[in-house]
Amino acid sequence: MNVANVARPGLRPIRALPGRQGVEVIDQRALPHALRFETLASVEAVATAIREMWVRGAPLIGAAAAYGVALQATQDARDEALHAAGARLQASRPTAVNLAWAVQRMQRVLRATPLHERAQAAWDEADAIAEEDLRVNHALGEHGLGLLRAVAARKKDPVNVLTHCNAGWLATVGWGTATSALYQAHAAGIAVHVWVDETRPRNQGAGLTAWELGQAGVPHTVIADNAGGHLMQRGKVDLCIVGCDRVAANGDVCNKIGTYLKALAAHDCGVPFFVAMPASTLDLQLADGQRIPIEERDGRELTHVAGRSAPGEVLEVQLTPDGTAVANPAFDVTPARLVTGLITERGIVAAEPHALRRLMEERS
Amino acid sequence: MNVANVARPGLRPIRALPGRQGVEVIDQRALPHALRFETLASVEAVATAIREMWVRGAPLIGAAAAYGVALQATQDARDEALHAAGARLQASRPTAVNLAWAVQRMQRVLRATPLHERAQAAWDEADAIAEEDLRVNHALGEHGLGLLRAVAARKKDPVNVLTHCNAGWLATVGWGTATSALYQAHAAGIAVHVWVDETRPRNQGAGLTAWELGQAGVPHTVIADNAGGHLMQRGKVDLCIVGCDRVAANGDVCNKIGTYLKALAAHDCGVPFFVAMPASTLDLQLADGQRIPIEERDGRELTHVAGRSAPGEVLEVQLTPDGTAVANPAFDVTPARLVTGLITERGIVAAEPHALRRLMEERS
Repeated sequence: MNVANVARPGLRPIRALPGRQGVEVIDQRALPHALRFETLASVEAVATAIREMWVRGAPLIGAAAAYGVALQATQDARDEALHAAGARLQASRPTAVNLAWAVQRMQRVLRATPLHERAQAAWDEADAIAEEDLRVNHALGEHGLGLLRAVAARKKDPVNVLTHCNAGWLATVGWGTATSALYQAHAAGIAVHVWVDETRPRNQGAGLTAWELGQAGVPHTVIADNAGGHLMQRGKVDLCIVGCDRVAANGDVCNKIGTYLKALAAHDCGVPFFVAMPASTLDLQLADGQRIPIEERDGRELTHVAGRSAPGEVLEVQLTPDGTAVANPAFDVTPARLVTGLITERGIVAAEPHALRRLMEERS
Repeated sequence: MNVANVARPGLRPIRALPGRQGVEVIDQRALPHALRFETLASVEAVATAIREMWVRGAPLIGAAAAYGVALQATQDARDEALHAAGARLQASRPTAVNLAWAVQRMQRVLRATPLHERAQAAWDEADAIAEEDLRVNHALGEHGLGLLRAVAARKKDPVNVLTHCNAGWLATVGWGTATSALYQAHAAGIAVHVWVDETRPRNQGAGLTAWELGQAGVPHTVIADNAGGHLMQRGKVDLCIVGCDRVAANGDVCNKIGTYLKALAAHDCGVPFFVAMPASTLDLQLADGQRIPIEERDGRELTHVAGRSAPGEVLEVQLTPDGTAVANPAFDVTPARLVTGLITERGIVAAEPHALRRLMEERS
């Protein structure tokens, strides 16, 4: 089982290189115009790749951070060095809980390992985290598939799913979270059609999700982030499935900026709104979503857009007048009351404290 | 009284040229990177300028269409020619009611005028429509100003207003609709700060509203369309003011795609949501907003973005993978229940049938 099912056998957004001297990642900034691989050979390189979003998506960030700790352990596996590396990695993106989760898991394992065995143990554990992500995403996709089957059973036209940002295989080690059910449905011969939110300001929908779905032959249509409410009003969306970066104990969902607006529209139009959530994305330490720190990113992401020019060169153009002030919060919080259900590897769970506590108890 | 109050005396998005042989407009496609004027000398040229959005915004489209009829009347003022010109103009943008309203008003006046006097009468009437727009927008801005004063009276920080798209002076003959109150407040020394939605896919917020506000020295911050809900959740928006392209008899508001999502967020967060509406934008023939035809525009608006490259050239870059399907509805409908009030030239009116009928009776 690997991401291969999608379109390209062996294509993974991250993998340890033979000999464990580095990690190969897809530099996602170059997509959809070029498929470029980069080798990361130090914890600094991994932190940069996370901060500058060569790799992005909560699950993939978690796996990358785990490999970052492994790279550190190869160089210097003493507690102090591992601690510094962990802090550096965690500072690279403040919102995704998987980052902290993966770093802490690596450190817990390594602290319990003799110094001379730590490098080996670190790579083994990072590989285990990556393989778990694949398994988890496949499992949650099976549960999501049930939702799609149910819609397909009561209509003739394709099942219309709206998604925001990229919670696809590029955001994970494989399968994706929100997309896992879509790929499995497509493979099972269920007709699905995906409305892909462009996802400003970084255009992960227009650039990454559209590319992913296109590679796999899954029918899809890119829309402006502004359009989803209108489509729901006119009955053109059967359900929404999005990913998440952190889910609080009360079921509030932190995800890419703009998710809240889609959840409001879904609620207003009676469209089910599901969040694909590996259990590792749940943060029971956090009582509710309003306490989640929201990353404010560089305004240049908004004032400038990168794309391919007519001669085929990828370049940036400026949209705003010179000197325009911009604000660029990267995430928002969707209140639990707007979430129909959380699609997890253990089944579909209500976005409420009791159900989430039970899920966590099963996890541990 | 003219748009001049804003920043540049005499700068108007449309004006009849001396001798009435043509109309000068700002080609808004070049903004914010260049301020370019174009002369339109035929009804065909006006229809093209409307369709291709050299001029845009419901009130400005209305004025442009009126001048288009005047250009036709100069060439051939017979009923059949005027009828054909009107049909041509109305087909150029299907959603804005002002377009139909202006064409019908011109035709009504001209039908009642002897053939040899029609050219003169047509220009006079088009000028009258333009001057009325200035007066109406100033008047509705005065009512909006009252709302801003009320907020300013109870807080120390600037009044934070969120707006979507461009309902500024560029969208009208002057003052703007949504912006009129902002300009008047700024001139009156009330501290205002405007959150400007980028407004994908055509970026009228990032390109036009930011430029307009910048020219006038009104503090503002451009945000992704995705960000407004988050800002409202965190108490950073005091009120929303948007424009409209058509308002139905029940108070449903048709405006730029994405308006509905902001209205939902405002409602969810307890932020007042106002729509600036010249009475000419009210369409009592239309029972509710779900019957408004929604213009589907060229997908290239979404797949490609125009901006200024580093060397200073304005060019287009492609965001999506080659061949990606896109959908591009240009407007959506905000249900009346989400609208706090309509800011009209006669005062602030509830978005409900009785109040709107009364407004129309006063208008006629």
